[in-house]
Amino acid sequence: MHAMDDTQIVDRLTELGIELPPPPAAVAAYVPCVVHRSMAFVAGQVPLVDGKVLHPGALGDEVSVDEGVAGARQAALQALSALRHGLGDSFERLERIVQVTVYIASVPGFVEHPQVANGASELLGDVLGDMGRHARAAVGMSSLPLGGCVEVQVTAAVTPV
Amino acid sequence: MHAMDDTQIVDRLTELGIELPPPPAAVAAYVPCVVHRSMAFVAGQVPLVDGKVLHPGALGDEVSVDEGVAGARQAALQALSALRHGLGDSFERLERIVQVTVYIASVPGFVEHPQVANGASELLGDVLGDMGRHARAAVGMSSLPLGGCVEVQVTAAVTPV
Amino acid sequence: MHAMDDTQIVDRLTELGIELPPPPAAVAAYVPCVVHRSMAFVAGQVPLVDGKVLHPGALGDEVSVDEGVAGARQAALQALSALRHGLGDSFERLERIVQVTVYIASVPGFVEHPQVANGASELLGDVLGDMGRHARAAVGMSSLPLGGCVEVQVTAAVTPV
Repeated sequence: MHAMDDTQIVDRLTELGIELPPPPAAVAAYVPCVVHRSMAFVAGQVPLVDGKVLHPGALGDEVSVDEGVAGARQAALQALSALRHGLGDSFERLERIVQVTVYIASVPGFVEHPQVANGASELLGDVLGDMGRHARAAVGMSSLPLGGCVEVQVTAAVTPV
Repeated sequence: MHAMDDTQIVDRLTELGIELPPPPAAVAAYVPCVVHRSMAFVAGQVPLVDGKVLHPGALGDEVSVDEGVAGARQAALQALSALRHGLGDSFERLERIVQVTVYIASVPGFVEHPQVANGASELLGDVLGDMGRHARAAVGMSSLPLGGCVEVQVTAAVTPV
Repeated sequence: MHAMDDTQIVDRLTELGIELPPPPAAVAAYVPCVVHRSMAFVAGQVPLVDGKVLHPGALGDEVSVDEGVAGARQAALQALSALRHGLGDSFERLERIVQVTVYIASVPGFVEHPQVANGASELLGDVLGDMGRHARAAVGMSSLPLGGCVEVQVTAAVTPV
């Protein structure tokens, strides 16, 4: 596996024309990112742009697959931002994204979860290369917080301090 | 982070007037809590009181947000009980709750998942302090076992033996 | 705990008359199994037979509990196959299945998730004995990829290399 350090990942983001969103704020009794020993757990991210939910609603209803893809990509970016902040504002300790769950608000009979979830998976691969290759579950939900069309949950392996 | 030992956590429960429910029984081919090396995985908990599901049904339908909060809190208590039992009837090895998933039975269009999930998150924070601060995903389900309104799944980091 | 090596597990499969399906192919930006340090994360498996979804649809609607059980069992077999392949075509490094999530497509009001999920849990116990005893969450979904009736996600602990 080809590992990238923080500078290389930040350069790669610039090359892709991507600006990481600000890290999600700490909220109530849970935190945006727990880093403990060799693992980092990022809280589920609903896509937000300027504080507003991106493409609210359900797939198969008012949200198109393209909009779902955009939502999953944005949520994955937020997860990356939370992860980098949780690691001390650096990707230096990141070893690999190991697991991603893409929760997709959808009507019964919706079947295009893989396409929607690729919005998150491809972003992680584009930015992190081999380090972004993860196992994934993509599943359909009756509802999501804030009416979001997707929620993305990321788990990563990190170098212990 | 301020760590608490088993005595301090048990004292804190008493101070809060909380009695841990008996640990869930081992069932069929799965177990209430797997402890392996430095991680503990607790099986998903549906809130039960005296063997009966607490507030069965769906949020946005027959179950109110306050009832959902009470269900999430009770399920988190059951998870703590399963965790302590799995660790040899002591919290001594507990390092931190790292990840909590709160599955919420809900109708399409329901958006108050964060409030419901806080029932679990605040309980963990109240009892465990910094050790209870976790990453979280809260998501809406079409249905849950036994007709439960919530199911709470807890993952913890523990000191290897 | 009684541990089994690769030969014993393969013999046990033969004894049970089970042939592992071929490992799922690597797809797009995610992979069927991530093995990193002491953990293995298998991607969510929808049951497939000869490339076709087994018993598509929802529990409580066109899919019976028995069909759901068969789907969960098949998905668990696929997860075992992905895991063995990810570990270098051997179970030698497998220490234990630690966590299983069984996502079940279902209508509101469906309550027999435990029975359906046992299709996966009992398979893992039958094949792996104590090493197959896991924590579990079983939850109801509005929809699943390819119209699958279940999706099974497996996490395992492995011996680091």
